[in-house]
Amino acid sequence: MTYNAPVKDMMFVLKELAGLDQVSQLPGCEDATEETVEAVLNENAKFTSEVVAPLNWTGDVEAATWNNGVVKTATGFKDAFKQFTEAGWQGLQHPTEFGGQGLPKVVATPCMEMVNGSNLSFALCPLLTDGAIEALLVAGSQEQKETYIPKMISGEWTGTMNLTEPQAGSDLALVRTKAVPQGDGTYRIFGQKIYITYGEHDMAENIVHLVLARTPDAPEGVKGISLFIVPKFMVNDDGSLGKRNDVFCASIEHKLGIKASPTAVLLYGDNKGDVGEGAVGYLIGEENKGLQYMFVMMNAARFQVGVQGIGVAERAYQKAVQYAKDRVQSRPVDGSANEAVAIIHHPDVKRMLMSMRSQVEAARAMACVAGAAYDAAHNHPDAAARQQNQAVYEFLVPLVKGWSTEMSIEVASTGVQVHGGMGFIEETGAAQYYRDAKILTIYEGTTAIQANDLVGRKTARDGGAVAKALAAEMARTVGQLNESGSVHAKAVAARLDAARAAFLDTVDFVVNNMKTNPNAVFAGSVPYLMLAGTAVAGWQMARALLAAEGKIKSGETDSFYSDKVLTARFFADHVLSKVPGQRDSVVGGFASVTEMAVANF
Amino acid sequence: MTYNAPVKDMMFVLKELAGLDQVSQLPGCEDATEETVEAVLNENAKFTSEVVAPLNWTGDVEAATWNNGVVKTATGFKDAFKQFTEAGWQGLQHPTEFGGQGLPKVVATPCMEMVNGSNLSFALCPLLTDGAIEALLVAGSQEQKETYIPKMISGEWTGTMNLTEPQAGSDLALVRTKAVPQGDGTYRIFGQKIYITYGEHDMAENIVHLVLARTPDAPEGVKGISLFIVPKFMVNDDGSLGKRNDVFCASIEHKLGIKASPTAVLLYGDNKGDVGEGAVGYLIGEENKGLQYMFVMMNAARFQVGVQGIGVAERAYQKAVQYAKDRVQSRPVDGSANEAVAIIHHPDVKRMLMSMRSQVEAARAMACVAGAAYDAAHNHPDAAARQQNQAVYEFLVPLVKGWSTEMSIEVASTGVQVHGGMGFIEETGAAQYYRDAKILTIYEGTTAIQANDLVGRKTARDGGAVAKALAAEMARTVGQLNESGSVHAKAVAARLDAARAAFLDTVDFVVNNMKTNPNAVFAGSVPYLMLAGTAVAGWQMARALLAAEGKIKSGETDSFYSDKVLTARFFADHVLSKVPGQRDSVVGGFASVTEMAVANF
Repeated sequence: MTYNAPVKDMMFVLKELAGLDQVSQLPGCEDATEETVEAVLNENAKFTSEVVAPLNWTGDVEAATWNNGVVKTATGFKDAFKQFTEAGWQGLQHPTEFGGQGLPKVVATPCMEMVNGSNLSFALCPLLTDGAIEALLVAGSQEQKETYIPKMISGEWTGTMNLTEPQAGSDLALVRTKAVPQGDGTYRIFGQKIYITYGEHDMAENIVHLVLARTPDAPEGVKGISLFIVPKFMVNDDGSLGKRNDVFCASIEHKLGIKASPTAVLLYGDNKGDVGEGAVGYLIGEENKGLQYMFVMMNAARFQVGVQGIGVAERAYQKAVQYAKDRVQSRPVDGSANEAVAIIHHPDVKRMLMSMRSQVEAARAMACVAGAAYDAAHNHPDAAARQQNQAVYEFLVPLVKGWSTEMSIEVASTGVQVHGGMGFIEETGAAQYYRDAKILTIYEGTTAIQANDLVGRKTARDGGAVAKALAAEMARTVGQLNESGSVHAKAVAARLDAARAAFLDTVDFVVNNMKTNPNAVFAGSVPYLMLAGTAVAGWQMARALLAAEGKIKSGETDSFYSDKVLTARFFADHVLSKVPGQRDSVVGGFASVTEMAVANF
Repeated sequence: MTYNAPVKDMMFVLKELAGLDQVSQLPGCEDATEETVEAVLNENAKFTSEVVAPLNWTGDVEAATWNNGVVKTATGFKDAFKQFTEAGWQGLQHPTEFGGQGLPKVVATPCMEMVNGSNLSFALCPLLTDGAIEALLVAGSQEQKETYIPKMISGEWTGTMNLTEPQAGSDLALVRTKAVPQGDGTYRIFGQKIYITYGEHDMAENIVHLVLARTPDAPEGVKGISLFIVPKFMVNDDGSLGKRNDVFCASIEHKLGIKASPTAVLLYGDNKGDVGEGAVGYLIGEENKGLQYMFVMMNAARFQVGVQGIGVAERAYQKAVQYAKDRVQSRPVDGSANEAVAIIHHPDVKRMLMSMRSQVEAARAMACVAGAAYDAAHNHPDAAARQQNQAVYEFLVPLVKGWSTEMSIEVASTGVQVHGGMGFIEETGAAQYYRDAKILTIYEGTTAIQANDLVGRKTARDGGAVAKALAAEMARTVGQLNESGSVHAKAVAARLDAARAAFLDTVDFVVNNMKTNPNAVFAGSVPYLMLAGTAVAGWQMARALLAAEGKIKSGETDSFYSDKVLTARFFADHVLSKVPGQRDSVVGGFASVTEMAVANF
């Protein structure tokens, strides 16, 4: 087994930190009882570890291939995707009226982690399809929903997001793809889109492209972008497939990682299909509101990319543990044996593994807590509670995306390091995680883009209100840790309190300087994101420590709980301890950035 | 031009920080005048950037290839190596009596950086040859020196280090390769060595393998290892090549990076040559002292691997700057333009570039200062000065190796990040540095092995004396910064003083707990190395700030000096600021590591 899904930790997080029992009392979430959720997670664990995980390394070696516009995925991918969708996993979090399971996000989150932990490249196809479904649910017409969503949930069709063009990456104001209205309610799309994940493949019979484009009279910039459905094959009235639309894959990229996931260059309107010139497109919602709808899709995708980071980091951790237990090398530093021992006995190897494990567990807790906030924001009967939870969810999304993915690169790198020279040999497999993870801080908005979101929309706009409310919750946890009185709890309390204070200092700096000195604030935007992510994730680990100590006090003897205490302690001593220094970098470290002349680089 | 050698910064470091004028007054170093050194560096810059650098990407794509025992290097490598050695670069730091240039290490250091910055894979061949030459200089007989060193300096032959076996990586006690004495002063070698860099290739007519092996009656463990010369082709009395020796390349590895550098599996004694069964080997020095000699070679190689980190990080920085100046995306956050601008104008991109640049400059300064200490340790007329400089050099080697290489991974990763999606596309080239750099923290001793060296031999053994002497020097620099009185100097002084204090706390912890609680000390060994490296490198940047301010005060108007002040300030605010937190991790963070049961991972 190359991947053991961490269901036990997931259930702990859901029950003890994310409030699964409260989520299951929300209207529409009644099915998410502990028993059901555990069964769902176990089933997902079995499927992903047995069917999807074995394709990870073979997919990397074989990679997706392009030949004259046709993309072939690696051996086994098509069949695994068929099984995945037939088992209902694509519809897990989507409405039952379109064939989904209607389960809350807090349950979907660990399932996302498992499919990503099994195989990042494979998971991208359902990930993008989820995003397309969410955008249609929010902005599509009833007819559009009925036409496309059930087929995407069933896996007969898949979805894509078409944003990027060569000149328009982070800056979507620069999108140039044209959408020409045909007078019959349809449009013809002309342009080139790049970096389109699963933009062409052989795993489904149709592909539903959601495409950003400009109508002829649209205003310049982001206010003139509309969103269109462009199916690869036209859909007949009876739902069967018709003519080949005028969208074709010109090439796929030769990438550092996620090689089994085809990254397509798509040409719209090259007059190669059966529909005449221009790809037939259907407007979603209203003209010029495309970016607004795409943000729905992007926010869902951003959250999932954060979870990708957790998945690949967990996988890297497991591989490193296995190697560290197998590899015998050197005697113990404390003289406790006269012979070489498995390297996991060496303190530095243990430190590396604890570093990987504690950060993965912290990120998982943060993501699941965010998922629960999303569920409350969408399902809570009380409007104020919905609003409050929505604000918390929106604050956490850039942290889940930015922090977890930056973490995943560090963890994957540490994973290679644990393997020593073997880690550098591709056949070992550890290097694949290091290559794969590097995309996660880039796509669906780089860490800097997440940080812009955190600084602007999520912190400055409300004067730091949500951030301060979270800090107040941290203070409550500090109090509980001090009351608990154990050595570990007190040590964690001190670190969390210092981090909380530094977090507040930084929030004040952001709020107070945003208008008067935006360059100073944005010079520290990513450090602020990392600081906030560390503080929030560390807070979740502190809560985990309290829950674990509670279990131990109530007589639980499972070492899972004493391990959780140690993992929380490690995170506090080795990760939370960075926060005061990060505060100093943000609050006191902008001068050199702003003063340096661009010409002098 | 894909690589612009940073000669200006190198000369600044040599003159203002590494005391080039003092080095040039040492006996035997008289040739290293400022004028000569600048000419050497400029010549090296021209050669490496014009001849070696263009082969970096093509070498990665083509890679070294193996076919039935024969290894072919990538197109252009053989010719470039011929030019490299004919121009005398292989002999730069080696004695004139064997055909070298006899230049001090402080001059060789920036030259090493340039060849590595140009092409890590290429540079490995001269790097290993340097190591073999150093080992022969220390332990070889006069006949061995005369037979092998001139040919290695001329580039007709190259050198390798054969340490690792499948079961013996970091733990050389486990070496099993056998050396059977033949009664005529020669030995026959039998065994398998792995990870042998340039263990087989087509760039030279002979390869001089230095091989660790055990004689039949040798004691167990590291005290029974001897060092042998095993030439690929036997050497006749007249220096011409004779029979093919019994050492063959069974395969080369498929690696994450440095793909143009062949990493060989070598079989000794497989009865495939013309010499009968067993590879003919010649003992170096005395039996059972092989590890001691190999450490000479390893220490030289470790220092150079640290410099490799600086080289690849500089290259990654230059590429990122170029992209950031070219790529136009998004309007400035301060509203200073209504159109999208080159991304270098965005504060976060500037922050990333400053982070890369300041760390590269700091590492370069630390390495050159270490090189100067080496020169004084070897050439100073005063024995006490030699001893003191040797101690400083030995303290700095694990920092140069460990810190600079860990830094290079972070910097290469940031380099990819600056490129956004383009960074993940292999053809862009940024990803190659990210792949290549990952080996640097592993080979010639992982970061943990460097940290063991730092903790044990370099810190605990002398009760922290060298470390404390360095801290006292840092305090002197803090005083000078405060006297200088500029805003930037005072800010740097505060950070350096805090780092100095944290460094001392950590040294005390290491010294005081080494015997009583080695597991606690080694749980923090790598964090201590990173802390010490940051403090020492940051101290060099503080010294650089003082030197630059001095130049400005004396009327220099070159923006190089004001930029250096800002780079030093950045390093202080964003890197040195980590040190107190690192202290907390080492001093207070071992409990979770030591308490965690190995079985519970």
